[in-house]
Amino acid sequence: MDNRSIGIFDSGVGGLTVLLELKKALPHENFIYFGDTARVPYGGKSKDVVMQYSMEAAHFLKDKGIKILVIACNTATAFALDYLRQELDIPVIGVIKAGAASCVENLSGNRVGVIGTKGTVKSQAYNKALLELNPNLIIHSKACPLFVPVVEEGMAKEDLTKGIIRYYLQEFVDTSVESIILGCTHYPVMEEVIKEVLGDRIALINPAYETAQEVKKVVSEKGYAAERKEKGSVKYYCSDEAESFYEVGKRIVPIESCEIEEIDLMDIVLNE
Amino acid sequence: MDNRSIGIFDSGVGGLTVLLELKKALPHENFIYFGDTARVPYGGKSKDVVMQYSMEAAHFLKDKGIKILVIACNTATAFALDYLRQELDIPVIGVIKAGAASCVENLSGNRVGVIGTKGTVKSQAYNKALLELNPNLIIHSKACPLFVPVVEEGMAKEDLTKGIIRYYLQEFVDTSVESIILGCTHYPVMEEVIKEVLGDRIALINPAYETAQEVKKVVSEKGYAAERKEKGSVKYYCSDEAESFYEVGKRIVPIESCEIEEIDLMDIVLNE
Repeated sequence: MDNRSIGIFDSGVGGLTVLLELKKALPHENFIYFGDTARVPYGGKSKDVVMQYSMEAAHFLKDKGIKILVIACNTATAFALDYLRQELDIPVIGVIKAGAASCVENLSGNRVGVIGTKGTVKSQAYNKALLELNPNLIIHSKACPLFVPVVEEGMAKEDLTKGIIRYYLQEFVDTSVESIILGCTHYPVMEEVIKEVLGDRIALINPAYETAQEVKKVVSEKGYAAERKEKGSVKYYCSDEAESFYEVGKRIVPIESCEIEEIDLMDIVLNE
Repeated sequence: MDNRSIGIFDSGVGGLTVLLELKKALPHENFIYFGDTARVPYGGKSKDVVMQYSMEAAHFLKDKGIKILVIACNTATAFALDYLRQELDIPVIGVIKAGAASCVENLSGNRVGVIGTKGTVKSQAYNKALLELNPNLIIHSKACPLFVPVVEEGMAKEDLTKGIIRYYLQEFVDTSVESIILGCTHYPVMEEVIKEVLGDRIALINPAYETAQEVKKVVSEKGYAAERKEKGSVKYYCSDEAESFYEVGKRIVPIESCEIEEIDLMDIVLNE
């Protein structure tokens, strides 16, 4: 039994879609979520910069005494997962392997799509993970850089958004993929409207659920389950204003306003 | 005579529209441009965070021995101009006062529009500057958060962009403003397509030209002109990859690839 918290980080609020699934899968666990809202987004930034930010986020959470680290950001997973696994002495779980597994499991043919940030797509991390599971896959991937601002602006349900989705994703209809991995933790917020635009023929894969299942497995295997009968709690931290984190965050998932704490990035940076 | 450089900073590449006008107005001056591409954008971030980043950028340029600092970013001007003027012992010039002056000069009626980032609009910095010049103005302002990613993604000329412009700006046609200040240094890149959508009746004000004239005036008044007959040079710095700065930057203005240097933010932060 282990009552330490599970740590989760993302560039901003997108990772809350992963937290939501984690809370469902592990209802008695405590979670500490860090959103790096002072430096959001990560998706267009370089490997070096994303690694640096991820390392800072990881150390911040590590100092809080977490038992597992979940990288709830595809770009950070693509660029920093291997490094953080080497650096930290606790299990580190990203979103990409789980997303790839979930996609391949449910496939009848061999054509799949991956959408994500520029960083994630450029890293080819999904391609590698998918081809390891099935070398015969034909993968069509595309960066959709406007999707994150659309979600952060709470515009997922606006008519305009359908035009933006068509602009990026029409080619997936033409290349007849069977499923598309939502390879950015913001994208599940747009899941319904993407479905509306693309139709029922293409399945959308949200890696959040599978990631939560992977974390649950690690908790069980390591004997890390909390000794707690009541519902666990969540403590939120962000690097910019708590109010804004709450405003944008609640567009994504239900979130308790009273538990958000602003941290000064300088404190993390200087602690390195 | 003073051969020191003029320093300019922006959150990323948007400020290159200001640099372009500065080079025209002061062809014999040397410039040092810093784009904080590792933390772009500033527009949705809080006053505290933008002030912190602006201070770091200002000190980085100050250490290079500049004679004047130009804040080529509306959000940073709105949040950090007064502070940087107090802190630094060189002239500091922002883009907002110049933009407001240019707008009021050319006005026949009293209805104007201001568009910018969330930070700039929330700060009301343009409203204050405009009302100081003409207390009878009726100002209609609006944040257009998708415009920066549209420009950074090189999508200014895409058909989709017209839909995004209509989404934000249709109400300006309805409220019959006479002119709209492009209150973000990225927006001039979209000037043509905004004109196409809004029609000729509404004038678009680009503060970059007026800002350059203000800098020229300070150079002349202070006896700061460079003792140089040949064309001045530009040295570029950015906090993320030089290659990406060049790729995105050249969508905005002509830019020489060979003179871009990546800097490590940690060095700035730790130098404070």
